[in-house]
Amino acid sequence: MAVNLTAPEQLTPINGINIASCHAGIYEHRNDFCLIQFAETSQVAAVFTKNKFCAAPVSIAKRHLEQNKSTSLLINSGNANAGTGKQGQSDALQLCLTLSSKLGCQPEQILPFSTGVIGEYLPVEKMENSIDTLISSLSDSNWLSAAEAIMTTDTVAKGISKTFRIGDKKITITGIAKGSGMIRPDMATMLAFIGTDLQIDQSLLQTTLKEIVEQSFNRITVDGDTSTNDSCVIIATGCADNYLISSKNDDGYEAFYQCLLDVCRHLACAIIRDGEGATKFITIHVNHGSCEEDCLKVAYRVAESLLVKTAFTASDPNWGRLLSAIGNADTQQFDINKVNVYLGNVSIIRYGERAEEYQELAGKAVMMEAEIIVDIDLGVGQANTTIWTTDLSYDYIKINAEYRT
Amino acid sequence: MAVNLTAPEQLTPINGINIASCHAGIYEHRNDFCLIQFAETSQVAAVFTKNKFCAAPVSIAKRHLEQNKSTSLLINSGNANAGTGKQGQSDALQLCLTLSSKLGCQPEQILPFSTGVIGEYLPVEKMENSIDTLISSLSDSNWLSAAEAIMTTDTVAKGISKTFRIGDKKITITGIAKGSGMIRPDMATMLAFIGTDLQIDQSLLQTTLKEIVEQSFNRITVDGDTSTNDSCVIIATGCADNYLISSKNDDGYEAFYQCLLDVCRHLACAIIRDGEGATKFITIHVNHGSCEEDCLKVAYRVAESLLVKTAFTASDPNWGRLLSAIGNADTQQFDINKVNVYLGNVSIIRYGERAEEYQELAGKAVMMEAEIIVDIDLGVGQANTTIWTTDLSYDYIKINAEYRT
Repeated sequence: MAVNLTAPEQLTPINGINIASCHAGIYEHRNDFCLIQFAETSQVAAVFTKNKFCAAPVSIAKRHLEQNKSTSLLINSGNANAGTGKQGQSDALQLCLTLSSKLGCQPEQILPFSTGVIGEYLPVEKMENSIDTLISSLSDSNWLSAAEAIMTTDTVAKGISKTFRIGDKKITITGIAKGSGMIRPDMATMLAFIGTDLQIDQSLLQTTLKEIVEQSFNRITVDGDTSTNDSCVIIATGCADNYLISSKNDDGYEAFYQCLLDVCRHLACAIIRDGEGATKFITIHVNHGSCEEDCLKVAYRVAESLLVKTAFTASDPNWGRLLSAIGNADTQQFDINKVNVYLGNVSIIRYGERAEEYQELAGKAVMMEAEIIVDIDLGVGQANTTIWTTDLSYDYIKINAEYRT
Repeated sequence: MAVNLTAPEQLTPINGINIASCHAGIYEHRNDFCLIQFAETSQVAAVFTKNKFCAAPVSIAKRHLEQNKSTSLLINSGNANAGTGKQGQSDALQLCLTLSSKLGCQPEQILPFSTGVIGEYLPVEKMENSIDTLISSLSDSNWLSAAEAIMTTDTVAKGISKTFRIGDKKITITGIAKGSGMIRPDMATMLAFIGTDLQIDQSLLQTTLKEIVEQSFNRITVDGDTSTNDSCVIIATGCADNYLISSKNDDGYEAFYQCLLDVCRHLACAIIRDGEGATKFITIHVNHGSCEEDCLKVAYRVAESLLVKTAFTASDPNWGRLLSAIGNADTQQFDINKVNVYLGNVSIIRYGERAEEYQELAGKAVMMEAEIIVDIDLGVGQANTTIWTTDLSYDYIKINAEYRT
């Protein structure tokens, strides 16, 4: 059951992007195949998993993207095409080839994406047989059905549309994502596909996406596992016909950056809210560290401590576990006697000890909420960061220990 | 329920070391206070937690140890005296003072140790009132009752005795430990106390202990959390009257090193076998890495992946999760196409893919066992390492989410 998350009622079309979904038969009863097609003038940027064991479609999408002439994304759920060796590579290429011949383009213009079970071969023939259906149902109004088709064990479809202005031009960003806590067993993978009608230089788009992924998708964790297939792609069609943005100093860049950050953070947090067995949505701020890296180390150490996670599940304001996790982080500059911690507005740790006025009942009240903010002040510098995570419930173990059996 | 672990039937006395335990009333119904006293001629070495939030007794024990004239360890269970600030420091010092005045020595000759709940003050008066009882019941045959008195949520007392020879001298090492998976909530802490009648130089003893802790207590993990109170102490009384060992090249050093390593690995593995909710005892070998650090990164990444841990709980030979965890390690030199993995004697991954001849039933048979060996061959160098861990069961969550409630 997702924490305060419902599917979007509608998503705004992006001028220049057409989408179709269908049932290719990878799953038994639901759509599992999706085509996103866009104008040849579009600029495309992407960020991929850092896992060294990356799936076949990831390595192909990376290679194709380098040619800088992409026009289509071909995405399937239900099968990750990971751990499938040479066969997996040729399967993914085969699908690019079939699609490109039907679209009258080159196979290198197709970027393939897969998510689902690891270690099984794609049902290529079934998928090839569905490509005509995909092509014939392309429309600019299919974002929401695409968000549904890329789901694996997600319980809620994830998407959002936002707009901003550059002079008299209204620019739209629409994004969809799937992922159910980074580490859904055999169904890992976070995928995010974002479209905008902005006109922007490709290399600036890539730099911007990379920066923003760092501040959104790379700031969420369930347990630190990174999937073999994680990918985030943005397509900028240029159809809004704004004056080309080619530098960070150009008019409208700042508004674009902020809007894209909002979209990506919304999608990233939606993944956490739909995390495996999640009963809480937890925001961890770390402030006044000596550098951002130290802040991140503390934040992740706390977010990934099973001790802390199970305390959240139990709504237990266990400050000893928090302090112990903070002390475990491999920080450069740290003084336990300067550490202050707040649960919501309640001061629970002051200068490395239980705050004198702290009452267990006040901490417990914060911990009973479905959304909890933990504020950690390291008191040694000016850097800060924020990450988002979940608790660790019985259902997490149930989902992960019983899958496949 | 511990995995293939029973309490030792007896532990061999060490000439020069006397021990006593009693009930000071920190726990309701069992012994919780322990004194280990030894000849002034003894050499003492110790290794302490790396957690920056270390408990009051740890910082005092470190300081007192520097004076190099220790004669007693004073240990309590049921209360960690951690997160207790200045009051915690003065409580621990007060106990050292009271004990030293009764023993006729200096307070700096006492090393205090505590394990149990974080954030509560020690019941100093109760403990002081029990010191006479401890002193009057000192005997060299009390190792096993000490192993019981230092337990917190351990389900089995942990100890072992081993002997080796230097010429015609028989040398004995006896060690006891407590710990129930590194991260027992509010009751974290691994403590190990080891005695030997060997005559050895102090600085060599310290170097040796540090090396051996790296190969034993620092090679076990439940989830990577390090307690605020972890400590390992060795006392060498010299009563065996062997020719003083003062260099690694001296006769008998090699035999001592191996015997101490056996003792420490036994105790470390006993802690894992008694891990929280553990249903499996898992040995992870990583071979042919480019350096030991790379091997350790892979080993810990696998051991601490919730995905892998829950697969063990489910007896699921999930090679995709293993490969994904291996690929997630931040290694210097790595090629997924060179990775081979064995579950017991079953080859499941060859050159980064599912091994061709692998049958799920064969993997499942290995995973059903209570003791499982995972053999990961990185195929890029000559380094190797071994660590030990547990699975992650419902009981782990139960223990950790329900404690304190």
